[in-house]
Amino acid sequence: MNKKVIEAANILIDIALRDDVGEGDITTENIVPSEIRRKAKMVAKADGVVAGLPIAEMVFRKLDANLIWKEKIEEGAHVKSGDVLVEFEGTYRALLTGERTALNFLQRLSGIATMSAKYADAIKDFHTVILDTRKTLPGFNKLDKYAVKKGGARNHRQGLHDMAMIKDNHIEVAGGITAAVKALRSSLDHSIKIEVETTTLAQVQEAIDAKVDIIMLDNMDIETMRKGVELIAGRAKIEASGNMTLERLRDVAATGVDYISIGALTHSVTALDISQRIED
Amino acid sequence: MNKKVIEAANILIDIALRDDVGEGDITTENIVPSEIRRKAKMVAKADGVVAGLPIAEMVFRKLDANLIWKEKIEEGAHVKSGDVLVEFEGTYRALLTGERTALNFLQRLSGIATMSAKYADAIKDFHTVILDTRKTLPGFNKLDKYAVKKGGARNHRQGLHDMAMIKDNHIEVAGGITAAVKALRSSLDHSIKIEVETTTLAQVQEAIDAKVDIIMLDNMDIETMRKGVELIAGRAKIEASGNMTLERLRDVAATGVDYISIGALTHSVTALDISQRIED
Amino acid sequence: MNKKVIEAANILIDIALRDDVGEGDITTENIVPSEIRRKAKMVAKADGVVAGLPIAEMVFRKLDANLIWKEKIEEGAHVKSGDVLVEFEGTYRALLTGERTALNFLQRLSGIATMSAKYADAIKDFHTVILDTRKTLPGFNKLDKYAVKKGGARNHRQGLHDMAMIKDNHIEVAGGITAAVKALRSSLDHSIKIEVETTTLAQVQEAIDAKVDIIMLDNMDIETMRKGVELIAGRAKIEASGNMTLERLRDVAATGVDYISIGALTHSVTALDISQRIED
Amino acid sequence: MNKKVIEAANILIDIALRDDVGEGDITTENIVPSEIRRKAKMVAKADGVVAGLPIAEMVFRKLDANLIWKEKIEEGAHVKSGDVLVEFEGTYRALLTGERTALNFLQRLSGIATMSAKYADAIKDFHTVILDTRKTLPGFNKLDKYAVKKGGARNHRQGLHDMAMIKDNHIEVAGGITAAVKALRSSLDHSIKIEVETTTLAQVQEAIDAKVDIIMLDNMDIETMRKGVELIAGRAKIEASGNMTLERLRDVAATGVDYISIGALTHSVTALDISQRIED
Amino acid sequence: MNKKVIEAANILIDIALRDDVGEGDITTENIVPSEIRRKAKMVAKADGVVAGLPIAEMVFRKLDANLIWKEKIEEGAHVKSGDVLVEFEGTYRALLTGERTALNFLQRLSGIATMSAKYADAIKDFHTVILDTRKTLPGFNKLDKYAVKKGGARNHRQGLHDMAMIKDNHIEVAGGITAAVKALRSSLDHSIKIEVETTTLAQVQEAIDAKVDIIMLDNMDIETMRKGVELIAGRAKIEASGNMTLERLRDVAATGVDYISIGALTHSVTALDISQRIED
Amino acid sequence: MNKKVIEAANILIDIALRDDVGEGDITTENIVPSEIRRKAKMVAKADGVVAGLPIAEMVFRKLDANLIWKEKIEEGAHVKSGDVLVEFEGTYRALLTGERTALNFLQRLSGIATMSAKYADAIKDFHTVILDTRKTLPGFNKLDKYAVKKGGARNHRQGLHDMAMIKDNHIEVAGGITAAVKALRSSLDHSIKIEVETTTLAQVQEAIDAKVDIIMLDNMDIETMRKGVELIAGRAKIEASGNMTLERLRDVAATGVDYISIGALTHSVTALDISQRIED
Repeated sequence: MNKKVIEAANILIDIALRDDVGEGDITTENIVPSEIRRKAKMVAKADGVVAGLPIAEMVFRKLDANLIWKEKIEEGAHVKSGDVLVEFEGTYRALLTGERTALNFLQRLSGIATMSAKYADAIKDFHTVILDTRKTLPGFNKLDKYAVKKGGARNHRQGLHDMAMIKDNHIEVAGGITAAVKALRSSLDHSIKIEVETTTLAQVQEAIDAKVDIIMLDNMDIETMRKGVELIAGRAKIEASGNMTLERLRDVAATGVDYISIGALTHSVTALDISQRIED
Repeated sequence: MNKKVIEAANILIDIALRDDVGEGDITTENIVPSEIRRKAKMVAKADGVVAGLPIAEMVFRKLDANLIWKEKIEEGAHVKSGDVLVEFEGTYRALLTGERTALNFLQRLSGIATMSAKYADAIKDFHTVILDTRKTLPGFNKLDKYAVKKGGARNHRQGLHDMAMIKDNHIEVAGGITAAVKALRSSLDHSIKIEVETTTLAQVQEAIDAKVDIIMLDNMDIETMRKGVELIAGRAKIEASGNMTLERLRDVAATGVDYISIGALTHSVTALDISQRIED
Repeated sequence: MNKKVIEAANILIDIALRDDVGEGDITTENIVPSEIRRKAKMVAKADGVVAGLPIAEMVFRKLDANLIWKEKIEEGAHVKSGDVLVEFEGTYRALLTGERTALNFLQRLSGIATMSAKYADAIKDFHTVILDTRKTLPGFNKLDKYAVKKGGARNHRQGLHDMAMIKDNHIEVAGGITAAVKALRSSLDHSIKIEVETTTLAQVQEAIDAKVDIIMLDNMDIETMRKGVELIAGRAKIEASGNMTLERLRDVAATGVDYISIGALTHSVTALDISQRIED
Repeated sequence: MNKKVIEAANILIDIALRDDVGEGDITTENIVPSEIRRKAKMVAKADGVVAGLPIAEMVFRKLDANLIWKEKIEEGAHVKSGDVLVEFEGTYRALLTGERTALNFLQRLSGIATMSAKYADAIKDFHTVILDTRKTLPGFNKLDKYAVKKGGARNHRQGLHDMAMIKDNHIEVAGGITAAVKALRSSLDHSIKIEVETTTLAQVQEAIDAKVDIIMLDNMDIETMRKGVELIAGRAKIEASGNMTLERLRDVAATGVDYISIGALTHSVTALDISQRIED
Repeated sequence: MNKKVIEAANILIDIALRDDVGEGDITTENIVPSEIRRKAKMVAKADGVVAGLPIAEMVFRKLDANLIWKEKIEEGAHVKSGDVLVEFEGTYRALLTGERTALNFLQRLSGIATMSAKYADAIKDFHTVILDTRKTLPGFNKLDKYAVKKGGARNHRQGLHDMAMIKDNHIEVAGGITAAVKALRSSLDHSIKIEVETTTLAQVQEAIDAKVDIIMLDNMDIETMRKGVELIAGRAKIEASGNMTLERLRDVAATGVDYISIGALTHSVTALDISQRIED
Repeated sequence: MNKKVIEAANILIDIALRDDVGEGDITTENIVPSEIRRKAKMVAKADGVVAGLPIAEMVFRKLDANLIWKEKIEEGAHVKSGDVLVEFEGTYRALLTGERTALNFLQRLSGIATMSAKYADAIKDFHTVILDTRKTLPGFNKLDKYAVKKGGARNHRQGLHDMAMIKDNHIEVAGGITAAVKALRSSLDHSIKIEVETTTLAQVQEAIDAKVDIIMLDNMDIETMRKGVELIAGRAKIEASGNMTLERLRDVAATGVDYISIGALTHSVTALDISQRIED
């Protein structure tokens, strides 16, 4: 988990604890003595891929600096219902106060990793790579993208700032792909890649001529995609996008595209069911 | 939308824009001239209850201080698919750069309001009130709870800090409900209400004797709940919780409880489908 | 000393040290070698109740992380003139630079604790509890309220946000107590208590009928208070307020009110005389 | 009121409002409509010197950006009981929510100005100037010193950082005044003045020889002070300090000292009685 | 001047004004009345290219919100000694207090723009582009790079984060260019370009085979560079670096490289002489 | 290195690392394993005076908390080309990522110290002291002034806030030196020194009569300076300023002035050549 993910998690945890705990868990603080310590574990209650254990640990560690935390599986591991993910020990107060916040992160990120793994595994015999999109929840951008990688897929651009993506609105304003690319070339640092969304083979040809780095085949049928790949012939990387269901995935990969981007990886997250058990 | 919701939204918007836009929407900024303005609208693509328009407005206003924003419906209104929610006008850049972030908020909060309305409407002929729970997404606590109210339900406590809730772990540590309540009374300000989770009628009786403000009937069957309500006889407010499906809701309300709390209002959110259309 | 008091103290200490020490105690830093350490003690020079030792410690610890700090009495203890409150050891620089700031906190908070103890002790044979008010100094709200508790009294609401208090202005605008309570009930979370200020028995009756949680008997004479208590008959908690001098206190308590609130606990503070002595 | 006072006030106001109002004045917000505006005034209820009106204005302006604020007297003016200090108009909500915080500042600062004026007026026919000391309340350093000036006295150093003050501890460590001054001269910027505390005429002579900028005559009797002034003969500025009661002040000034410093200006503040009246 | 440059300038201006002005320009504030306004101008005292006028304006505007600022030339314009750059009007105080800070920025950035223009102009008949390097002053990274562009050169990567640059140390650790590129490919988002530093033609060949985006010819003589360009044959962009003096520049460009990077653009800055004149 | 220098360095380092490293040194992090440690040294490649080693250490320590850092010379030491300044050991990643930022600080500050030493050494047999000026780079004020002292010169005022300096503009507005001094005396704390810039002996006489603390002889020839010194006759400190080249320095010092201020110490900095060598 690199620095930027940790920082993003840190900010969200602070907000979550400030909202939920605020000036104190008044019930627990006034009933449970501060020195009592207990053991606990996180247990999977469904099959899936786990992501977010380090964030759950961060939550508890903010509440108990002396937390003991022993992960029984690695981030990104496939687990079965009943598998123990982590055994930990801390003050009874920390276990009670942090439980929900920790689970909130762990369940969402594991849900994303599980979904990503499903897509990535479906085409693992192709060279095609599964990418996520910008459809991440506000505040969770870096965490969601982290979970995607733990599930075995890869990240598209981080946002609007690190790669140029020419869409229909841009083409309309600029007066064509050629003009749009030229405008970008005269302003952008030479380190920035340029991608163009295309919906027809004519646009694909214009993109090839403009020497863009990546060409997106947007909402095309399989046959048109195949022709697009043929037309490009290695002169740019190729991304397929739009309506990318699990059913259709292998046919798309078989056209030879380099990437398939899937909004559903982060947009519609079904949390992985995980529960915390405190030992007596 | 009160100050605390606005502040929470403000923080999340800033994070979302920093993550997504960061140092700039490099495609749009280098292709779309800064002075071009366009009209746009948000349109419902499904039936539901709308919440979050002021947050969508905040997103665009951060990108264009001269935004014109005319809401066609009120927050909390029931809409049909095809209804226009808002007509607005701003720089073309702002419309393109802010679209996804604005929709992310609007769709989630409208999803929560829609779900809340479903539960509240189901028992509107009873005096019983639907409450949310602490199962809100990290960062979205105040926004989610705002949307719940727009849907016609009400908020339970904001977090662990503003009301005492004695659960099984607390009872175990304290050595009984009576002892737990006593510990709280000796420490808490007199402005703080005390609630106790009970699972048996014996516990209900102990809670009555301890003169708590609210008694939760947790995971009880309808018949036991009815006996609980009878036993309490107005000496405390009563909350029903656990497995509160839409199907079972009216039977629970019919027992005479004051509140029914529903984790699903904020925990499993199905976004309401809404799209942005920019006019030519 | 809980987290919120520590945070508030931390902020004030930082401001105080920035104002007083700023870029450095230029006299001490250029004359006293950094490695010299000395022993010192804080000594009471008057009888009273001590509060604020942990804050004095925080001041010195910010100036010397290796401070040794041995409290000879507990927070809230009654001391006699000449009693040693704490023995400590640190760099000579820290002792000189932090002395005034540390004493400033310690003397004020001990002054508040001493005053609070006087009031609380005066009616300790009654069930009535002494409460503070919102008349705390800007910046010192949480510290002042902490000292009140150390002196043996209790805290009223923390501010305008955690409990509703209907005053004459509110009643006038709403058009009566009943209407004011109704307005609050329709908006406030069910965790918030409602109190009403009353000045006549007619208002007391209206408050009882509106089922408020607490009724304040404001500036009433003893006889009227007694009638108010009788009228309420346990259907709400009762607070007496206004002109609550030490002389009058026992008569008020004898009426059976639950709380007596005293602005003077924090409003007019006579610092407890305490001095720092550095050993040779 | 210069920038640094405004900044310090701003910080304290924010803390005070966060503590007192926090997420909202829940009573007022739910009862008083946001659009109602009212007129109000601040009225002196005792004779004194007024300071802090701009801070009171800042408090209300944070709650109502459209506040109308017409001061009827100038900062530093002498007022009689009954005099109107300021007439203002704002939302009814702002008037109710900000009242106590505004008065807290205004009463304390006017108390300091009143006390400072008493001392300054007592010796206004001498060239001697009254100075304050470092005995200011944590957080209020700059505000207290501002009020001192409004009362007609002047400020000593701002803190430990902007002027060197050699005290007995420093003399002991350095091994004499001469050595202490030498240590400072070799380190301090040439813009920094050096003052020495002396308690004997022998020390005064040593200070003269060391060519310090200011010599403090600490806790000396009138006769010794007179000899000290004679001995110094204009070769340094002279400050008298210690036990400077109003009774003794003119005798001290008559010795010819340049400054008399008075801890009591800010240390033991009796608030000036001022009240807010809202018109119907 | 885009948002990131403005933000960086804002931070530096705040630090500079805090350091220089701090709590006030005590001479000016106590002598020059606040309401006096004066006209002034910035005049070039040497030939060069101007950059940084918007930053100079920001400095003055922080001191006078009503500043009038009329630029007589555009950012990036070539000026002669004696040319007026800007005419402005503000409070006399702002003109005196802000002068040095404004000039500090303006002179440095104009110095960089002037130097960049010299290099860019020298090869303007080639397709080769001049790039800056990471040798920018701490705090001035974004400002320095802004000035480079105003002078007619372009920016290399912003830092270590937005483009991969494989250097000798990386090659050594990875065990060759091929291995290093492979390690990057497996981790980096697909939006990130990869460049390799090469010092021999053998390395150039290895880089070609690894399909990197850019190949740096580091410290090669003209003849080797020419061979490198021939070898690469359009399969990657080419950057020349090391010892790139003005004298040698055209020969390097003539080899056909795409970019020449020059540390001296920002590393050794000779300020452009500019002075402020206040009218009587 | 005192607290204020460390704080200023800390801010600049954070900005520099955020700009340069940002979300990560993506090349190094993906190629160099995190656990590899290496030894390195900083070596002088020219003769000079070294300043800034603690800042270089701070840079690396932010990247590796376990850094080992052994300085072989003291801050302010004269070194010869080839001398080792410091031997250190850290993670290979930290050595690569921090190298340029560390050198940037070290080279600039050593350049300033070297220049300052040249001036200070040139007149070391006089009592005259070399002072710097306000001509420091934005953000580097405190660091530059620190380096000046390490080179053996001293600091003039820190900025516009800590000493009054009456210049021609102030004299013009006030209507003379006497009036300007009087305006300052009535407003400034008694701890603040007053200096006046004079260009004629008549002004010098006026400054003497106004009893200012320091008189600046601005841009005078040697003979006039000598007369000025004679005229002042010890009644004020004397600063010479304007066109103070190394050649002219001893003649100026011989006039008997107390200080000579030199803008060039910090304004035109030639970095001292220093390089980092990582051992295999």
